[in-house]
Amino acid sequence: MGSFKGHALPGSFLLMFGLWWSVKYPLKHLSKRVKTNCHSSLFYQRLELIEGLVKASFALIGILGEHFTSNGPHMQLVNGEDHSWVKLMNWQHSTMYLFYGLSGVVDMLTYFPLKVPVGLDRLSLSLAFFFEGFLFYFHVHNRPQLDQHIHSVLLIAIFGDAFSTFLEVFMRGHVVLEFLRASLTILQGTWFWQIGFVLYPPSGGPEWNQEDHSNIMFITMCFCWHYVIALILTAINYSLVYCFVNRQRWSNCEMDVGIWKLNSDKDEKAVLLAGSEEE
Amino acid sequence: MGSFKGHALPGSFLLMFGLWWSVKYPLKHLSKRVKTNCHSSLFYQRLELIEGLVKASFALIGILGEHFTSNGPHMQLVNGEDHSWVKLMNWQHSTMYLFYGLSGVVDMLTYFPLKVPVGLDRLSLSLAFFFEGFLFYFHVHNRPQLDQHIHSVLLIAIFGDAFSTFLEVFMRGHVVLEFLRASLTILQGTWFWQIGFVLYPPSGGPEWNQEDHSNIMFITMCFCWHYVIALILTAINYSLVYCFVNRQRWSNCEMDVGIWKLNSDKDEKAVLLAGSEEE
Amino acid sequence: MGSFKGHALPGSFLLMFGLWWSVKYPLKHLSKRVKTNCHSSLFYQRLELIEGLVKASFALIGILGEHFTSNGPHMQLVNGEDHSWVKLMNWQHSTMYLFYGLSGVVDMLTYFPLKVPVGLDRLSLSLAFFFEGFLFYFHVHNRPQLDQHIHSVLLIAIFGDAFSTFLEVFMRGHVVLEFLRASLTILQGTWFWQIGFVLYPPSGGPEWNQEDHSNIMFITMCFCWHYVIALILTAINYSLVYCFVNRQRWSNCEMDVGIWKLNSDKDEKAVLLAGSEEE
Amino acid sequence: MGSFKGHALPGSFLLMFGLWWSVKYPLKHLSKRVKTNCHSSLFYQRLELIEGLVKASFALIGILGEHFTSNGPHMQLVNGEDHSWVKLMNWQHSTMYLFYGLSGVVDMLTYFPLKVPVGLDRLSLSLAFFFEGFLFYFHVHNRPQLDQHIHSVLLIAIFGDAFSTFLEVFMRGHVVLEFLRASLTILQGTWFWQIGFVLYPPSGGPEWNQEDHSNIMFITMCFCWHYVIALILTAINYSLVYCFVNRQRWSNCEMDVGIWKLNSDKDEKAVLLAGSEEE
Repeated sequence: MGSFKGHALPGSFLLMFGLWWSVKYPLKHLSKRVKTNCHSSLFYQRLELIEGLVKASFALIGILGEHFTSNGPHMQLVNGEDHSWVKLMNWQHSTMYLFYGLSGVVDMLTYFPLKVPVGLDRLSLSLAFFFEGFLFYFHVHNRPQLDQHIHSVLLIAIFGDAFSTFLEVFMRGHVVLEFLRASLTILQGTWFWQIGFVLYPPSGGPEWNQEDHSNIMFITMCFCWHYVIALILTAINYSLVYCFVNRQRWSNCEMDVGIWKLNSDKDEKAVLLAGSEEE
Repeated sequence: MGSFKGHALPGSFLLMFGLWWSVKYPLKHLSKRVKTNCHSSLFYQRLELIEGLVKASFALIGILGEHFTSNGPHMQLVNGEDHSWVKLMNWQHSTMYLFYGLSGVVDMLTYFPLKVPVGLDRLSLSLAFFFEGFLFYFHVHNRPQLDQHIHSVLLIAIFGDAFSTFLEVFMRGHVVLEFLRASLTILQGTWFWQIGFVLYPPSGGPEWNQEDHSNIMFITMCFCWHYVIALILTAINYSLVYCFVNRQRWSNCEMDVGIWKLNSDKDEKAVLLAGSEEE
Repeated sequence: MGSFKGHALPGSFLLMFGLWWSVKYPLKHLSKRVKTNCHSSLFYQRLELIEGLVKASFALIGILGEHFTSNGPHMQLVNGEDHSWVKLMNWQHSTMYLFYGLSGVVDMLTYFPLKVPVGLDRLSLSLAFFFEGFLFYFHVHNRPQLDQHIHSVLLIAIFGDAFSTFLEVFMRGHVVLEFLRASLTILQGTWFWQIGFVLYPPSGGPEWNQEDHSNIMFITMCFCWHYVIALILTAINYSLVYCFVNRQRWSNCEMDVGIWKLNSDKDEKAVLLAGSEEE
Repeated sequence: MGSFKGHALPGSFLLMFGLWWSVKYPLKHLSKRVKTNCHSSLFYQRLELIEGLVKASFALIGILGEHFTSNGPHMQLVNGEDHSWVKLMNWQHSTMYLFYGLSGVVDMLTYFPLKVPVGLDRLSLSLAFFFEGFLFYFHVHNRPQLDQHIHSVLLIAIFGDAFSTFLEVFMRGHVVLEFLRASLTILQGTWFWQIGFVLYPPSGGPEWNQEDHSNIMFITMCFCWHYVIALILTAINYSLVYCFVNRQRWSNCEMDVGIWKLNSDKDEKAVLLAGSEEE
């Protein structure tokens, strides 16, 4: 990391996942009551597989990005000459990505009929968040005050995410916890970008005064604003999905009526009735 | 804040809400067993709407009060001349109110048939408490010892409130948690007033010695007394509601008997029977 | 407190309650399967009333003891001459007792048919533990190292008790939580005595070296031993109750047979049958 | 401890238990659906007895090892001459083993028909972990920075284990919690070995620079790697058990068919049917 790009990359990953979750989970919950065909369950399972694949890919990109950029350690841990450690910062970031990679692999395994215990995917995601926070916690030692503070407040988002995801192990599919996870992940994403802008201004503007207390006060408040924005984004996505599902329901109803009129086979009627009973 | 009024205003808001909750929730629980007509459910829904509206209004008043008083920032964040931050204290307080405003808006949305997930109102309230605590935690940096201590003990009430409200997401309508929330909110309210009296004595009396350890010991103990009073207030409201509901039940019974004698329509009898069966 | 007696008094109270609970709860659970007559439910309700009464009395004794001993504040809070606080230590201890008094009162109210919410007695006990810990936490400021340490480890017992009792609000009658509460309360009791012996040696022996690190190491370990003893005491009481209940069950069976032979009324047979069915 | 062997011993104990659990629990869960005979329940109960016995034996070995090695205290606590404490470090380690011994005894008692409350075995294990962490927390006072750090990160594994085992009191048999416990115990085991290698290099190589910040950074990251390995080990054991159970199921099916053909007694058929119904 140690650069604007190094913060923008994980920030983008997290932001994308947060936004994706803020769409996926409402879709899952709201479309439960529509369920026009029996393929939807398979559809969501395949979605989980793809999500796991994307997560693992992002993690791989992150690890490779940390190692094989110009000033990366190129997979070398110990310097042969003086037995010193090589670029530990990049190694730490790779470790962080590694846990997300593991979480992605578990997501994928869940798809296959291997009897992976239910909730293990949530546990692995929770552990990924936890160890991200763990590494960050010991990361910011011996840094200027503002740098420390801007990373410390991030810990709240990270550990909040880890805690809420851990709760999901026991309360899988709890819509409020999923909402919380989505919003906190968006917060992480936007805050990574904020850290990049504050510590490594890309515009080449003047650096922030690291010891000015009013800067620290602003950062504290700014974190709250980020979360307000994350909450509003999650809420907007929820309402968009709500509108989309409702509209689809209507068009489905019309379609169903049409189908019904055309072919009045016994089997199809049964399916339709089963669908309407569930509503 | 930074003044007696600045502490009295949020203190009054919180005290009002705490007292209101200590009346509303017992009423809801105890009147469940009476329920003489089917309008009561609608009545409570409308109450939630009004509560949300009042919460959002209070938040708006708070934000405007922080900004447009004589020494407020008047919505200006950055000073154009020397690029310094303008009145960050007031901005932080506004941010605190903003979360309560959000919580109020979610309360209102819950009223409308939008399929807002159950428990989101509790989550938003819990987040409002949490971020109040978060801002306070970083607020008291570099202040005299007594000032720090008097704000620190408040954090217990705030985070206690946040935690107990978060539990309500999963255990909605748990009467003990609602009791706890009401009492902790009353505690917050009275303690804001206490802070005002200690740090900005309105009577113009002598200021408290900020470094005297016995003052700190007294404040610690005083916080406990405030909570004892908050608990007793909550208990008194509970018993008043209990008496009120019991008396109303009796008068309802008499009234019911009267109505029954006057008009013996089929429908009304059915309603009465349904009511009595539920008891 | 500030003396051997001042620590021995609350220590004895807590020890008595811990031991009592380690007898009461096993009795309740194990005798559930015997229940030879229908009076047992009333018996336990009356027991709760007496427990509450004893708790409130202990609290009152504690408060009076703190105030009206020779060097107590005699209910005077502010010194009229120089506006200084009078004997804040004793006032703090009284405050601690006050919460236990409240808890006792709630226990008593639960007995009467007032529709006190289920779980409020556990909440009030949990709050009593919590505020005991809260007062202790700010109590030990500016004291020698050993004094601080010996009080700090007590906080683990206190907050553990508060947490486990809080869980009982939601899992009332969970036998493991009751076991935990009993053992932690015994630990508190014996540790109060230990504090008395270390800081105010009653034998008039030489005081402990407050800055010696090995003393602190011993105290840490000694705390563990106290808990081992508390656990063993709780287990012994459990087994004694187990033996007692089992023996009583046998004698009841014999008695029942005797009664059955003497008077073969219809009603009594029904009661016996109901009893045996429940087993 | 204070030596390579002193860390390798508990490390091996914990590693063995972690690995054993990572085999036992999947076996229990996956074989539930096979259950070819009614002896399996008895088999698992006997396994618990043996596990408790081994745990208690390990604890006894640990205690004796700490006391009766050449530089141990030989059960002497106070030096008679100058009233100083004798080898408190070894005493502390013995105390740690003592709690594991207690947990083993409770495991054994659970086997016998003594009506030991369900969940007490988990509580006692959780307490063993907690007090291990408690002793460690106060253990590392006044040590060099690297020594402190390497022990501090261990606390995360220990308290994580204590917390997850405490949750098992209420959610007994939750497969994800058991997975978490197994993996965290393996982590503890391997990390004890790591501490031994870092602080007391057995190869007689040069000691690590205790104040070098990059060493601390490496240790932080290394802890994450250990956990990744622990997770992978747990997962591998899970899949091995999965394969084993699946293969056994097939061979059982064939065997069952053979038995069925040979002797068609009524009783055996009933057992087989009951078994197949459960699947």
